[in-house]
Amino acid sequence: MTMKRKKVSVIGSGFTGATTAFLLAQKELCDVVIVDIPPMENSTKGKALDMLEAAPIQGFDANIIGTSDYADTKDSDIVIITAGIARKPGMSRDDLVQTNQKVMKIVTAEIVKHSPNTTIIVLTNPVDAMTYTVYKESGFPKERVIGQSGVLDTSRFRTFVAQELNLSVKDITGFVLGGHGDDMVPLVRYSYAGGIPLETLIPAERLEEIVNRTRKGGAEIVNLLGNGSAYYAPAASLVEMAEAILKDQKRVLPSIAYLEGEYGLDGIYIGVPTVLGAGGIEKIIELELTDEERAALSNSAESVRAVMKVLA
Amino acid sequence: MTMKRKKVSVIGSGFTGATTAFLLAQKELCDVVIVDIPPMENSTKGKALDMLEAAPIQGFDANIIGTSDYADTKDSDIVIITAGIARKPGMSRDDLVQTNQKVMKIVTAEIVKHSPNTTIIVLTNPVDAMTYTVYKESGFPKERVIGQSGVLDTSRFRTFVAQELNLSVKDITGFVLGGHGDDMVPLVRYSYAGGIPLETLIPAERLEEIVNRTRKGGAEIVNLLGNGSAYYAPAASLVEMAEAILKDQKRVLPSIAYLEGEYGLDGIYIGVPTVLGAGGIEKIIELELTDEERAALSNSAESVRAVMKVLA
Amino acid sequence: MTMKRKKVSVIGSGFTGATTAFLLAQKELCDVVIVDIPPMENSTKGKALDMLEAAPIQGFDANIIGTSDYADTKDSDIVIITAGIARKPGMSRDDLVQTNQKVMKIVTAEIVKHSPNTTIIVLTNPVDAMTYTVYKESGFPKERVIGQSGVLDTSRFRTFVAQELNLSVKDITGFVLGGHGDDMVPLVRYSYAGGIPLETLIPAERLEEIVNRTRKGGAEIVNLLGNGSAYYAPAASLVEMAEAILKDQKRVLPSIAYLEGEYGLDGIYIGVPTVLGAGGIEKIIELELTDEERAALSNSAESVRAVMKVLA
Amino acid sequence: MTMKRKKVSVIGSGFTGATTAFLLAQKELCDVVIVDIPPMENSTKGKALDMLEAAPIQGFDANIIGTSDYADTKDSDIVIITAGIARKPGMSRDDLVQTNQKVMKIVTAEIVKHSPNTTIIVLTNPVDAMTYTVYKESGFPKERVIGQSGVLDTSRFRTFVAQELNLSVKDITGFVLGGHGDDMVPLVRYSYAGGIPLETLIPAERLEEIVNRTRKGGAEIVNLLGNGSAYYAPAASLVEMAEAILKDQKRVLPSIAYLEGEYGLDGIYIGVPTVLGAGGIEKIIELELTDEERAALSNSAESVRAVMKVLA
Repeated sequence: MTMKRKKVSVIGSGFTGATTAFLLAQKELCDVVIVDIPPMENSTKGKALDMLEAAPIQGFDANIIGTSDYADTKDSDIVIITAGIARKPGMSRDDLVQTNQKVMKIVTAEIVKHSPNTTIIVLTNPVDAMTYTVYKESGFPKERVIGQSGVLDTSRFRTFVAQELNLSVKDITGFVLGGHGDDMVPLVRYSYAGGIPLETLIPAERLEEIVNRTRKGGAEIVNLLGNGSAYYAPAASLVEMAEAILKDQKRVLPSIAYLEGEYGLDGIYIGVPTVLGAGGIEKIIELELTDEERAALSNSAESVRAVMKVLA
Repeated sequence: MTMKRKKVSVIGSGFTGATTAFLLAQKELCDVVIVDIPPMENSTKGKALDMLEAAPIQGFDANIIGTSDYADTKDSDIVIITAGIARKPGMSRDDLVQTNQKVMKIVTAEIVKHSPNTTIIVLTNPVDAMTYTVYKESGFPKERVIGQSGVLDTSRFRTFVAQELNLSVKDITGFVLGGHGDDMVPLVRYSYAGGIPLETLIPAERLEEIVNRTRKGGAEIVNLLGNGSAYYAPAASLVEMAEAILKDQKRVLPSIAYLEGEYGLDGIYIGVPTVLGAGGIEKIIELELTDEERAALSNSAESVRAVMKVLA
Repeated sequence: MTMKRKKVSVIGSGFTGATTAFLLAQKELCDVVIVDIPPMENSTKGKALDMLEAAPIQGFDANIIGTSDYADTKDSDIVIITAGIARKPGMSRDDLVQTNQKVMKIVTAEIVKHSPNTTIIVLTNPVDAMTYTVYKESGFPKERVIGQSGVLDTSRFRTFVAQELNLSVKDITGFVLGGHGDDMVPLVRYSYAGGIPLETLIPAERLEEIVNRTRKGGAEIVNLLGNGSAYYAPAASLVEMAEAILKDQKRVLPSIAYLEGEYGLDGIYIGVPTVLGAGGIEKIIELELTDEERAALSNSAESVRAVMKVLA
Repeated sequence: MTMKRKKVSVIGSGFTGATTAFLLAQKELCDVVIVDIPPMENSTKGKALDMLEAAPIQGFDANIIGTSDYADTKDSDIVIITAGIARKPGMSRDDLVQTNQKVMKIVTAEIVKHSPNTTIIVLTNPVDAMTYTVYKESGFPKERVIGQSGVLDTSRFRTFVAQELNLSVKDITGFVLGGHGDDMVPLVRYSYAGGIPLETLIPAERLEEIVNRTRKGGAEIVNLLGNGSAYYAPAASLVEMAEAILKDQKRVLPSIAYLEGEYGLDGIYIGVPTVLGAGGIEKIIELELTDEERAALSNSAESVRAVMKVLA
């Protein structure tokens, strides 16, 4: 009967990784280890220390350390991968895929070595293919390798809808299937304000604009920032998924899950509704789709498979 | 009987300003306006939007906007100033003071114009002199112009002590007087673990090391990061002060306050224990000091006055 | 620019009133005044003091007082009415209505006298008729007199569904129209788990059982307790409504609202979806109903009107 | 690597037990089992269900059940004992001791049978002797049998001081040794407002009045309520202790601990400063006492021993 604190390791100390670490600790969900490569070791330590120095004020008891030594991640309950490069102007998609695939391989080997029973959540883009890579490299059961995209996509959608209707974000829900961003398959008919279908509250044309803005939500932030990409909402998304697992909450959240026949797809990681609990992805929820939705999901799967072909 | 949400404006969209904005909104304390100069307008909007997109997940209803137009700050309940430059290698202290003084003057004029009844909290360094500048420029009563340093300094101290004793940060308290950082006058005899004086729990030599580490706490982070300075703990400090005022909590917190005779000092902004509530600094608490402490505070005041002499 | 704390008065110091007061203070939403009749004055003071003595541990700064003097409620932002008697064995419905109507009249006169601009939330049963009574007695605009029933009914429904599906309560939503309890008109088609219509997840027969259990949710607790009725969930419901108003959250919550033509009903207080914000009921949301739903709502309205006829 | 939720059982479904259960669940610290004797089984189930029905609104995922079957407490991480009778007019102290001792014996046997590795927190009065009884009956190591009194006593003291000085409860600390209530040994010199010794802020005479009010804090509530005793603050106290253990927070909190030589006392359970973490009472902190304090503690120990002599 041990009360040992839970432990989550975050791979990558960039803004998303750091913010994820802070939000995890702030909720007293676990102790946190932030890992980055040796040249970043000091800055990672600096971020961890700065966060710790906020703890007495924010009132949380959680240890946070920065390191470049994976031994420090030993026996993590969850490992979150935010490492990897972002696509830069002039970089081909294939270059991005291959570079990040290499990162995933290195990172996964280290994770498996030190935490053979952990659950992994992947954020690195292109996230469907990278989650697949981590799955293959880890040899873990599929329910313990999970990708993040739908929590973020729906949160953006909910934000835009809440603004449109001038309603609380607490009462807006959204629903997506498929890949991240452009490949997103929004199920608007499953999206509500206070339980009322959005289709009855927002004109179709305007709703379509909101969906399109959501699809390009990542790019909107990139363009505004000028340098860098979103990190508050991605970090919050990762933390919600991790919390569901750490607290065995049985949350119904969209995850990038490995399909073996569900939705007519096989051998692919793609976004679907899931139940997240202590067992990782405890269930994939299958929905009846309209022909149109099924076609969109199929298209999205094709895009994911096209990326997977680039994998070494 | 209006239930209008409170409103806080944060001047400066750097890491500290942005993190401050996020923490304020996350607590549903107020709506937040982040202001930066026109070249930063888009990135400020991008940060604000990214934060908003985390709101449905983190479950807070608070509007956050980025802007370069001070008109958007109209009728703020509190304005927090994080704007200004950091000292760079090769820059003289006087250059830093004069540059940031100019920033304070511009910013203060805008604040006063749009929120004549607001309360201002200043973080910009050298913070004692900058708070004085804002006080003079604003023409506000002294209780509504407040500088931050002691909440941060004591939080760092508390972090180090909690690690030293392996105890909860919730039960460690610290106490400082005087200027920020090197000029800090720690009152170790008023610092406790669970109410027990630290002097009885930690050997004097080790306690001295912890005090010295606290003094140089900002530099420690700067050195680790390599590029940039601390922002999590500074932001948390600002938010704690703002919350005390917004909720009229009557918190006993160290503030940089304008002294008119207290502690034998006159016409100077320097760190002292205060009561923060709806009225801003509602009270300055005067303590009996030992001769040694009085001398240290006097030295600290001299340092502040030396900086004030550089002010235009 | 005042930061004065918000103030909520709770009329009735029974379990529901007391728990409501505690939950309000615990969230630091406001100062709280609990009012009961003179014979209860001391016990009301005792409860308030006991709550206050939990504040240092739970970490909230909010004043809570118990009183029998309505002058202490002066300038409340919200007043919540939980006072009145419960139906006892052998008591006719008409006796209940007439007794509680008298209580509402006395209480409302006092509220209006001391807080002419407040917003009133009514819990006392039969709640539709009692809310109507308070509306008439107060002379307040309809948006500032609100009854509670739907938040509680849907919360019970959500609890049962979460248990049925073994899912997080965070992801279950429910939807009701009409009167409280037996008169409840559940809109199961607007009820979801993670956005997925419950009708696709739970067999119709089982769903019907859950709906029926919800209808009799109050009686289930009464029967189990043997002596007394539910108070945790009712208090939480009141606090959610009050928070929406105090923080101007624009929550989409079911309220007992005064209808003037909406849903084909006029001059009656009955449960409908509303938007709650600083203005009280800021909007009544009208939905297209099926014939069956419309008939059920009409029946529910008849029940309410039957009770209203008993009003003096 | 299991993420199984923590589990806490609360013995006794009275107001304190029920409130404790609710506060534990509300913080999502654990699942909760409330146990009472068979005649109370239904009302216990009713309270648990009412709390569960508040969960969707308050947003917590935690199971709460009411039962009279100790098998349901199997493998609890912590068990909190609130069961027992309160002293009634005409009842001798010895009757109270002997009755509650019997309750402790029965309860402890059941706890040990179903959760042999749990940690027990005792609230039942006279709490020093009852904690001793549970310790002896359980055969548990001393660090896993803990009594509550000092957290409550200091919280009351802090409340009165915060009111006296019109300061935030967050910044007031208190310190007691010895038995509960009348036997309390207040260490006023270790009690502060914002780190400043209370003795410098409140006149000695007034401080003495506050100490005396604290000593009689339980009776003050009993007298006000007329029927029954305090439960909000006692429940909050139990939850703070349980949280420290469940989250391994290393809190410095006063506990009723088994002394074996500390403070010159041996073979007695009495209130002392302790460190609470995953291991239960991980440390007893010994302080230098003044002669006066040592005498008061000795007196308090005599009172406890007098009660222990009544134990069968």
